Amino acid sequence: MSNALVLQSDFGTADGAVSAMYGVAVGVSPELRICDLTHEIPQYDIWEASYRLIQTIAYWPEGTVFVSVVDPGVGSERRSIVVRTKGGRYVVTPDNGTLTHVKRMMGIVEAREIDETVNRLAGSGESYTFHGRDVFVYTGARLASGVIDYAGVGPQIDVESIVELPVVEPAFDGERVSGTIDVLDVRFGSLWTNISRTQFSQLGVERGQKVEVSIEDGTRTVYKNLLTYARSFADVYVGEPLVYVNSLDCMAVAINQGSFARAYGIGTGTNWKLSLRRAPDPDSE
Amino acid sequence: MSNALVLQSDFGTADGAVSAMYGVAVGVSPELRICDLTHEIPQYDIWEASYRLIQTIAYWPEGTVFVSVVDPGVGSERRSIVVRTKGGRYVVTPDNGTLTHVKRMMGIVEAREIDETVNRLAGSGESYTFHGRDVFVYTGARLASGVIDYAGVGPQIDVESIVELPVVEPAFDGERVSGTIDVLDVRFGSLWTNISRTQFSQLGVERGQKVEVSIEDGTRTVYKNLLTYARSFADVYVGEPLVYVNSLDCMAVAINQGSFARAYGIGTGTNWKLSLRRAPDPDSE
Amino acid sequence: MSNALVLQSDFGTADGAVSAMYGVAVGVSPELRICDLTHEIPQYDIWEASYRLIQTIAYWPEGTVFVSVVDPGVGSERRSIVVRTKGGRYVVTPDNGTLTHVKRMMGIVEAREIDETVNRLAGSGESYTFHGRDVFVYTGARLASGVIDYAGVGPQIDVESIVELPVVEPAFDGERVSGTIDVLDVRFGSLWTNISRTQFSQLGVERGQKVEVSIEDGTRTVYKNLLTYARSFADVYVGEPLVYVNSLDCMAVAINQGSFARAYGIGTGTNWKLSLRRAPDPDSE
Repeated sequence: MSNALVLQSDFGTADGAVSAMYGVAVGVSPELRICDLTHEIPQYDIWEASYRLIQTIAYWPEGTVFVSVVDPGVGSERRSIVVRTKGGRYVVTPDNGTLTHVKRMMGIVEAREIDETVNRLAGSGESYTFHGRDVFVYTGARLASGVIDYAGVGPQIDVESIVELPVVEPAFDGERVSGTIDVLDVRFGSLWTNISRTQFSQLGVERGQKVEVSIEDGTRTVYKNLLTYARSFADVYVGEPLVYVNSLDCMAVAINQGSFARAYGIGTGTNWKLSLRRAPDPDSE
Repeated sequence: MSNALVLQSDFGTADGAVSAMYGVAVGVSPELRICDLTHEIPQYDIWEASYRLIQTIAYWPEGTVFVSVVDPGVGSERRSIVVRTKGGRYVVTPDNGTLTHVKRMMGIVEAREIDETVNRLAGSGESYTFHGRDVFVYTGARLASGVIDYAGVGPQIDVESIVELPVVEPAFDGERVSGTIDVLDVRFGSLWTNISRTQFSQLGVERGQKVEVSIEDGTRTVYKNLLTYARSFADVYVGEPLVYVNSLDCMAVAINQGSFARAYGIGTGTNWKLSLRRAPDPDSE
Repeated sequence: MSNALVLQSDFGTADGAVSAMYGVAVGVSPELRICDLTHEIPQYDIWEASYRLIQTIAYWPEGTVFVSVVDPGVGSERRSIVVRTKGGRYVVTPDNGTLTHVKRMMGIVEAREIDETVNRLAGSGESYTFHGRDVFVYTGARLASGVIDYAGVGPQIDVESIVELPVVEPAFDGERVSGTIDVLDVRFGSLWTNISRTQFSQLGVERGQKVEVSIEDGTRTVYKNLLTYARSFADVYVGEPLVYVNSLDCMAVAINQGSFARAYGIGTGTNWKLSLRRAPDPDSE
């Protein structure tokens, strides 16, 4: 039985690009299961592609093959690679930082460069702009369906050489745990930070207690307020902001049935810092 | 052979939430067919989730398992349930009104509450915000693939106890049939009412004849005009409004190749009343 | 083994229309593979539906059945047909111009009109507005799964009689190759013309050399500049415009990591003309 093939890109689904990729995969193996991660990664946003992979990969079975095509450097010398993660999943991608979170948080045990003399759609040699169709999905479908094994991808490369985007690590200074706003829960406008539940627990705040949340965008404080640390949205009033543990076991900030990001004009990236501390005791200040 | 699993949510497809749900379902059963109803339900809009279920459920085979996750009360005491409809389809959902239309229009023959000590993704106990992934899709996939039978969902509950949203019934006063605008045909801007073709037939209007359409938003008349009762859009000019029977066998109002909703600023819900009467005979008025 | 069924429409995925079509197809054959081309064709835009078919069809295996429903004339006398292309793929569609590009560029070898006395979903006789569900996908699923063979669609019709939209052919006047801007690469804002690489090669321009690009919208010159003819985006600076060969082997114009269409307000259609000539030698002018 073949493994699932899961596709991600910044192509959107309004034109035929994604469907052409599906067609190539079905041509490789008529029985292959093909699913989508998302095709709505903002154009050229390698960081978000990296984040969406780590958000989902662990929920797919061992052997699943992911193909991620956010590829501003298509046609350049950037490598086309396939990695095997700790836990036995595969990611087919340009080597441009898309593997940043998987490499750091899940672990990569082996990496190979795609040998395009073998793993390239027949007749596609004159096209230099759509490696998603001609190289990445073609190779991913061959690997997922067992037409090639992992060694059949191409020569092994050094895992350490895989490109990583710069990351700012969360930190605890004894009073305050600080991190970055990595991504939004798009439709709900919640802020997802890189501060893990374990790191937050150093503050000793219990559910139902207040937390001071500060958000800075590099030059100024954009938000500073006391919020309830809640188990879930239903613990606070409609319209009330809260701090909670998101579905990746990291700290997040939201407004119950509103959009925190839109309410305060919050963005994402290493410039957007969020820090949490136990609410000051009103009697002692 | 397993049955199809059909997913609906208000998550959108721009991040990894839907894909994580797919991954969990594939993990339960690698051979399972998984499809989408839609993931673009407006956030927290239980009414529209309920409507989209009744719009589609009858077109799927007996045994199909629907999972609907529009869940503003996640983490509260609202029940997680699975119902069996008349006709033998299943819906897995928070018990928050999502079953309003299915219960009234199709009929529910049996209901069970999900026993989370059995039907919850292993290792998800610390997450309180994503029951769609950890409970609903996991249970739905187990049911669709035959890992559990319906009794394996959990204890039976009273069908009568299932939460329903308030509904205003269409009425006929001898001259006028009135109802509410339940939903829009989103992309085409058509108004879909809860007035059935059978109810409308009491007016005795033939295709090609005129109907007086009045629309009120609770406080004022927003639209009042004579429209052709047409068999389909092609029976009227491009840009001409019409009354027709929609694909759910209910009365609808549209502009051929235009958007009625946008043209007149029409919304949906129990405040939006639409009434139809036979066009007055010009000689007798 | 059955063949894949690939669906295209202008329905969007925000309501239940596409899912109802999936349900009908699963009801015809529980094992059928069903995929999407796109459901985001702009409403009633037959030209774009035609283009998206030719953009993808060749990447799907022989035997694949496409269903395309962009159908402003639903309920009129327009025919419902199924064609067999050169290469053995099928397209199920209203005969309204949707086959323009497939007929001209790929070739149609046989055409049949759907016999609705046989190929119509049972019980759908009172619905005149959703042939996508009741006729097209039902017939497509029956054909893809082998419930009917091609002759089972209905009576043969003349291939020459299939409706085509007007097309302006690209032309070479000895110095300049001119064509139309057929479509946008939606998310990236690139302009895709109907000028093939072969036609462009008559100019004798090598990669890395400059090309003069002129764009007119019928009444005025909207853009005129010298651009690099590049192998791919990575050959020019970020923000620099370029001329390149797109994934359909036609000439295209873009801005690396920007949107050419938005930058200069460029549209598509037969009014939008784009011409290319070898950049004038600065010494000789």
